[in-house]
Amino acid sequence: MTWTLAHRAARMNPSIIREILKVTEKPGILSMAGGLPSSDTFPVAEIKAACDKVLTDNPRESLQYAASEGFAPLREWAAARVNAELGMNVTPDQVLVTSGSQQGLDLVGKILCDQGAPVAVETPTYLGALQAFTPYEPQFHSLASDHHGPLSEAIAELPRTAPGTRFMYLLPNFQNPTGRVMPAERRDAVMAAAQAAGVPVVEDNPYGDLWFDEHPGASLSSRWAEGSIYLGSFSKILTPGFRLGYAIAPKALYPKLLQAKQAADLHTPGFNQRVVYEVIKDGFLDRHIPSIRARYKANRDAMARAIKAHLPAACEYEEPKGGMFFWIRLPEGLNAIELLPLAVEAGIAFVPGAAFYAANPDSRALRLSFVTLTPDQIETGVAILGKVLHDALNSTHVIPTP
Amino acid sequence: MTWTLAHRAARMNPSIIREILKVTEKPGILSMAGGLPSSDTFPVAEIKAACDKVLTDNPRESLQYAASEGFAPLREWAAARVNAELGMNVTPDQVLVTSGSQQGLDLVGKILCDQGAPVAVETPTYLGALQAFTPYEPQFHSLASDHHGPLSEAIAELPRTAPGTRFMYLLPNFQNPTGRVMPAERRDAVMAAAQAAGVPVVEDNPYGDLWFDEHPGASLSSRWAEGSIYLGSFSKILTPGFRLGYAIAPKALYPKLLQAKQAADLHTPGFNQRVVYEVIKDGFLDRHIPSIRARYKANRDAMARAIKAHLPAACEYEEPKGGMFFWIRLPEGLNAIELLPLAVEAGIAFVPGAAFYAANPDSRALRLSFVTLTPDQIETGVAILGKVLHDALNSTHVIPTP
Repeated sequence: MTWTLAHRAARMNPSIIREILKVTEKPGILSMAGGLPSSDTFPVAEIKAACDKVLTDNPRESLQYAASEGFAPLREWAAARVNAELGMNVTPDQVLVTSGSQQGLDLVGKILCDQGAPVAVETPTYLGALQAFTPYEPQFHSLASDHHGPLSEAIAELPRTAPGTRFMYLLPNFQNPTGRVMPAERRDAVMAAAQAAGVPVVEDNPYGDLWFDEHPGASLSSRWAEGSIYLGSFSKILTPGFRLGYAIAPKALYPKLLQAKQAADLHTPGFNQRVVYEVIKDGFLDRHIPSIRARYKANRDAMARAIKAHLPAACEYEEPKGGMFFWIRLPEGLNAIELLPLAVEAGIAFVPGAAFYAANPDSRALRLSFVTLTPDQIETGVAILGKVLHDALNSTHVIPTP
Repeated sequence: MTWTLAHRAARMNPSIIREILKVTEKPGILSMAGGLPSSDTFPVAEIKAACDKVLTDNPRESLQYAASEGFAPLREWAAARVNAELGMNVTPDQVLVTSGSQQGLDLVGKILCDQGAPVAVETPTYLGALQAFTPYEPQFHSLASDHHGPLSEAIAELPRTAPGTRFMYLLPNFQNPTGRVMPAERRDAVMAAAQAAGVPVVEDNPYGDLWFDEHPGASLSSRWAEGSIYLGSFSKILTPGFRLGYAIAPKALYPKLLQAKQAADLHTPGFNQRVVYEVIKDGFLDRHIPSIRARYKANRDAMARAIKAHLPAACEYEEPKGGMFFWIRLPEGLNAIELLPLAVEAGIAFVPGAAFYAANPDSRALRLSFVTLTPDQIETGVAILGKVLHDALNSTHVIPTP
C-alpha cells in the first residue's frame, strides 16, 4: 500500500531542534540546545490551587466544549495587557486564544499563504515559524538584517524584490535565535516601510517580558494596527506545558482566523484557559515575571563570563539584553553542524545556526540557551564547548580547510 | 489596508453548528442542536485528584515542553486499548496524541489533500471533517450510502468515478449525524472494496464506546491496517474540555503526520495527557463508560417515546443503537433550515441536516442530540418541535408549496 502524499508534504521536514533534543535527552548531557524555559520558574503551587478552584467552582463549564474564540475573561485580560504594556489599542473581540503561539503561526499560514507567494522573514529567523508556514508552500524571502533587526531599506524594496509578499514575520524582542532587540527608531522605520510597501506584519512576541535592564518598548503592531497580527504566549512567563497563546488580529481579518481555528482543533482546552486566568487575574505576573528576569539575567551573566573565559577570542557575539539565547559566530574554518557530534560526545549540546535561515545558512553560527542550566552548569558547559572549539581550531591549523 | 488572503481561505466558512450554538445559548432554549456530551458524566472528582497528583509527583515534567508524539504511557494505553477492544494490532510508536480528534482530521488533510484531488465521504458525513479538510481544497466525492453506511459498490467504482481519491473518511460507529452503525458484513465489504480500489481509509471513532445493547465490533482499520488511519478521542467518554485524542497511523506514514503535528502546535499539552492517563490507567473507564451508556440509553428511549408521541407520523427515522443523535427526515414540503428560526422562537433548537452533506444537501433532514438534555426536557423539547412541525404542515396544507 502506497499512500499518495499531498504536494506540500514533500516540503515538510523533521524539526532539527527536536531531533537534537532527543539526542541530548541522554543523561549527563549539559544541553544548551533547547529553548526550554527553566522549570524552576513554573508556579506549581499557584497552578495546583487554580486547578482545584476551577474544578470546584466551574467543573462542568471547564470540562465541556467551549467557544472557539477562547475564554472571555482571558481574552479581556490579553487585550488589557497589550494595551497597557505595548502601546496597543485593541478590544477583546480581536483576541483569539491559541494552542501556544506556534498554533498562531499555523493559522496565519493557513489563511495568508499560497503556493509560491512570498513571505518575508528576518535573517536568521525562528525555525518553528519556517516549519509552520512551509506546509502552505510560500516562497520565503530573506530580509537583509543587522544587529538591530531587518533593514527598513530591504522592506521598502519588497514591492520590487518580492512582489505580492503576503506578510513579514518579525520578532522584535530578544529574537530567537539571535537574541537581538529592535530599538524604537528601527521599529518606526520598519513599520513605516511596511505600511508604505503595503506589506502586513506578523509580530511574534514570546520573549518580550524577559527584558533585563529596560522594557523593549511599544510593539510593532501598535505602530500599524490594521496591518498587523500580534502573537502572544504564556510559555515563557508561566508554563509551556499548558500550550497557551493568543493571536490579536484586525477586525476585518479575525473571522477567517477564527474559521481556521475551528477547523484545526475546535478550541484550545477551556480548562487550561480557566486555570491560567485564575492564576494571573489578580496581578500574579507582576510579581512572578521579575523573578524570572532576575534568574535569567544571572544566567546570562554567567554565560557571558564563561564565553569570555573559555571560547576562542575570534568568536563573534553580542550580549543579549533579554530573552533566552546567545548567538555566536565561530571563527573562520569552523562549522557548527560538523562540530555538534563532537560536542555531544564531549557532554554538551547546542543548536547549529544553519537551521534558522530561510536561505543561505551561516554554517559558522550556533545558538546557546542560557536559561535551562544553572550558572555552575553553564560555566562547565561553555568550558567544554571552548575545549571542543579550541581543539577544532588546532586541528584546522594542522589540516587547513581548502 | 487590504490583506491578501490565501486561495484556500475563500472556501473556509463559519461552522453553522457553532453559529447555531451561539443562538441557542440564550437562557431558556432547550437545545438538541449541539453534540455536547452530558456534563453530568464528567468525572470531576477523579480529574481533580489526578491534577493534584500530577502536579505533586511530576510538576516540572508536566509543565515543560514535551515530545510531539505524546506522553509515552498514554500512547501505550491507546495501542493496548484498540488492540484489545477493536481487533487491531498496533504498537505504541504508531500512536500520535492530538488536540482532540478534530486535530487528527486537520493533520490528515494537511499531509494527504491536494487542491482538486478527490476525498470520498459518506452521505451525509460529519460537518467538522468537511471543515477540517476544506482548507486543503480537496474535491469531495459523496459516496452513495444506505442505513448501514456507504455502499461497497460505490467504493469499488472510485477508480472510475473519482480517480486518484486520496482517502475515504468513514465513521463506522453511531455516525454523526445519522447515528447509523456499520454491521460487520458491511465493514468487510467496504474494506475489501477499499483495498481492491487502492483507496486508503481514515476511520473516525469518537462514539464507538457509546453502544447501548451490543459492541459494534472490530474497527475498519483492523481489516486493512496498512491502508488505514484510525482516530480516537477522549471527548465523549471522559471530557471534551481537555481536547485530547489520538491518531494511529501505519509506520510508513507516521513521520509525516508527526511533522505536521510539530508544525501545527509543537505538542498537545503534556499536563492534560498526564492527568487523563492518571485517571484512566487503572481501569477507570471500564467502570465509567457503562454509566454513560446507561444514561444515554435512557435518554435515547425518552427521545424515541417523545418522537412517536409528538412528531408527525410521516417523519422518517431509525432508532439509534448508540451514540448521541437521532436523524430525522421531515415530511415532504417541510424544510429544516426554514423551520429553525420558528423552532428557536418556540424555545427549542436542532441542527438542520443540510450542513452535513458534501453535495446535494437534503433540506428535509435534521439532527437531534439526546444526550445534553434530561429525559423530561427531551419530552418537552420534542413536544415543542412536534407542534412547530404540525403547524408548518398545516400551513403547508393551506398554502401548498408550488
